[in-house]
Amino acid sequence: MEYAFSDRIKNMTGNAIRDIFKLLARPEVISFAGGMPAADALPAEQIREIASQVLKDDPTGILQYGATEAYAPLRQSAAQFVKDAAKVNCSPEDLFIISGGQQGLDLACKAFLNKGDRVLVERPTYLAALQIMATYEAEVHSVNMDEEGMLLDELEEKLKIYSPKLIYTIPNFQNPTGRTASLERRRKYLELAEKYNAVIIEDDPYGLLRYEGEAVPSIKSMDTVGRVIYVTSFSKVISPGLRVGAAVAAPTLLRKMIIGKQATDVHTNSLSQAIIDKFLRLGYMPEQLAKSNKIHSERMNKMQEMIKQYFPSNVKYTRPSGGLFIWAELREDINTLDVLQKSTQRDVAFIPGSHFFAEGDGLNTMRLNFSNSSFERIEKGIKILAETIAEF
Amino acid sequence: MEYAFSDRIKNMTGNAIRDIFKLLARPEVISFAGGMPAADALPAEQIREIASQVLKDDPTGILQYGATEAYAPLRQSAAQFVKDAAKVNCSPEDLFIISGGQQGLDLACKAFLNKGDRVLVERPTYLAALQIMATYEAEVHSVNMDEEGMLLDELEEKLKIYSPKLIYTIPNFQNPTGRTASLERRRKYLELAEKYNAVIIEDDPYGLLRYEGEAVPSIKSMDTVGRVIYVTSFSKVISPGLRVGAAVAAPTLLRKMIIGKQATDVHTNSLSQAIIDKFLRLGYMPEQLAKSNKIHSERMNKMQEMIKQYFPSNVKYTRPSGGLFIWAELREDINTLDVLQKSTQRDVAFIPGSHFFAEGDGLNTMRLNFSNSSFERIEKGIKILAETIAEF
Repeated sequence: MEYAFSDRIKNMTGNAIRDIFKLLARPEVISFAGGMPAADALPAEQIREIASQVLKDDPTGILQYGATEAYAPLRQSAAQFVKDAAKVNCSPEDLFIISGGQQGLDLACKAFLNKGDRVLVERPTYLAALQIMATYEAEVHSVNMDEEGMLLDELEEKLKIYSPKLIYTIPNFQNPTGRTASLERRRKYLELAEKYNAVIIEDDPYGLLRYEGEAVPSIKSMDTVGRVIYVTSFSKVISPGLRVGAAVAAPTLLRKMIIGKQATDVHTNSLSQAIIDKFLRLGYMPEQLAKSNKIHSERMNKMQEMIKQYFPSNVKYTRPSGGLFIWAELREDINTLDVLQKSTQRDVAFIPGSHFFAEGDGLNTMRLNFSNSSFERIEKGIKILAETIAEF
Repeated sequence: MEYAFSDRIKNMTGNAIRDIFKLLARPEVISFAGGMPAADALPAEQIREIASQVLKDDPTGILQYGATEAYAPLRQSAAQFVKDAAKVNCSPEDLFIISGGQQGLDLACKAFLNKGDRVLVERPTYLAALQIMATYEAEVHSVNMDEEGMLLDELEEKLKIYSPKLIYTIPNFQNPTGRTASLERRRKYLELAEKYNAVIIEDDPYGLLRYEGEAVPSIKSMDTVGRVIYVTSFSKVISPGLRVGAAVAAPTLLRKMIIGKQATDVHTNSLSQAIIDKFLRLGYMPEQLAKSNKIHSERMNKMQEMIKQYFPSNVKYTRPSGGLFIWAELREDINTLDVLQKSTQRDVAFIPGSHFFAEGDGLNTMRLNFSNSSFERIEKGIKILAETIAEF
């Protein structure tokens, strides 16, 4: 039968990354496509022990329905975690637990966006954020960046023209470019948001994945009036499969996001919440971060080295200080969708950059993930990619 | 600061049940408010052993990102489960895994509803469904019921007048009334949906919680054209806290719901999915159902007995053949919101029925849950409730 789908969904064809994932499930495929942390960095044995422990200590608390806000112990330990990690002055009442960081973006958009409302995003930006905004039928405009973040003149101009309700930014090791916004830019984002009355969504899944240099204070840490929604995730440093993140905002605003969550998944699964809580309380985080950052940074260096050695010299690429991604720009007449088609025939995958542009341009760009491939696969994969690019 | 919230959320004050939950967290409170299965029926020890096993057998599959559709083994075992439980001819491709049954309603509404679109629901109906429909800014109309389900003349009349996109029904042990739709009504729902081109959402979280009589075939089992979205849940028979359910629909329609899910929580948490999968494959379900149905039916009988003994004789109440709820109608001039205010002062809670009416009436009704209270608490709580009601 023919279905009368909603406007928000009828023309939507799905998230390119998640569809590439499925195509590339064969083990022989070398995938630089996803944003997966290193499989060998996942603390499987610790999680196994903790799961058994928490199910012994609090079976009913974990297996029965829980509060939408959080599994209570995690609300406390996560608030302490955010305080330490992002220097946000955060009490348990300022935070709630979400089913992965991405749900924070969804709930923030749900709380603010009517059909046709405007949002400003970075250019390029996280493709799932663009997909979420499309489901709320928002009008999305993007702001160009340099190595220090969004260009301030352009940001102000677009704030003036479009009066957006939201500004969406990933200040640390941005997805897809790997760039980190400077302290000065972050201050200015907040000033401009104040001047033009926009709310900032500060998406920070990668902040702790720093391989060199000093952490830059979060925008939320400078927010005194409740203008920033800060979203973080345990996916990249403990486990993506557990689906646990946290969102921090002023209580009035948080309440609306919690109401939005009541209507979607009731509450985040309690077993994963209890595991993350125990992991934090046992003090496993510093060692886990040291281990995973070591693996990731070695792989990033390896990929940098291989790109330098094999890619055509006219390819420009970033060297991030952390995170999971390298961003490359090829010769202007090359379309990376065509490159992908050829490289997948040789079992190598990446994400064509155009998926990260609100306006669908950036055809000559690509995002490369290094974190979940061995040195051997990085070497082999980059070599094949270089050969494929050279054919254009 | 003042926030410019979206229309969908600005006047929404939250789900009454979930808010009552929080108020009543004190252990001395006797709560007939929630829809929790018996805590002593939860298979905690089995889940503990399984969690440990699956994290040993497939740590990467569980801890890394997974496919939006499902943790692959569960997609298969859940399809078999639905086939057995609801007699739906269901292959793994016709089903996907959701973060609890309620997410199925959210994703179905997301796939179909534009602002102002019409939905028909039962009168009364599940309050979270009403809340979800409000977040999609739908126009909701309700159809009166008798003991066999929705009144067919009224259903047809409202289909004709309103041309709704969706009909939402809970045919087994309905929430809140406990009623089960007859086979004849189910056939007619499908015929009428066909005639007036509506999609049926068949919400079935309670179907296996039958304490007497024979199962009635699901509407989905009679659907040959893809007109029904069937939603089920593992919450009531294994564990609500794990947040796992399943939705069955025609592939074209399923695809849109999966795209909707990509944009909310990426995928359902894999550890819970792996636990449910193993639980099903180990064949624990029949024994678990027998155990939980025994506990629940004894408690239902106890509550029936206590109501009969203590409630004023002019109170009408249902005697369901399964599920989790008894529905009571008090004298017409009594407002159960006032009754609740008084009963909570004596530490007894229930849900006032008006929350389940799309039009906000039904002021003299109440929903009573029996499954998660001991005999002693049922006796004490019903006695206090009876005394409270008698004061009006």
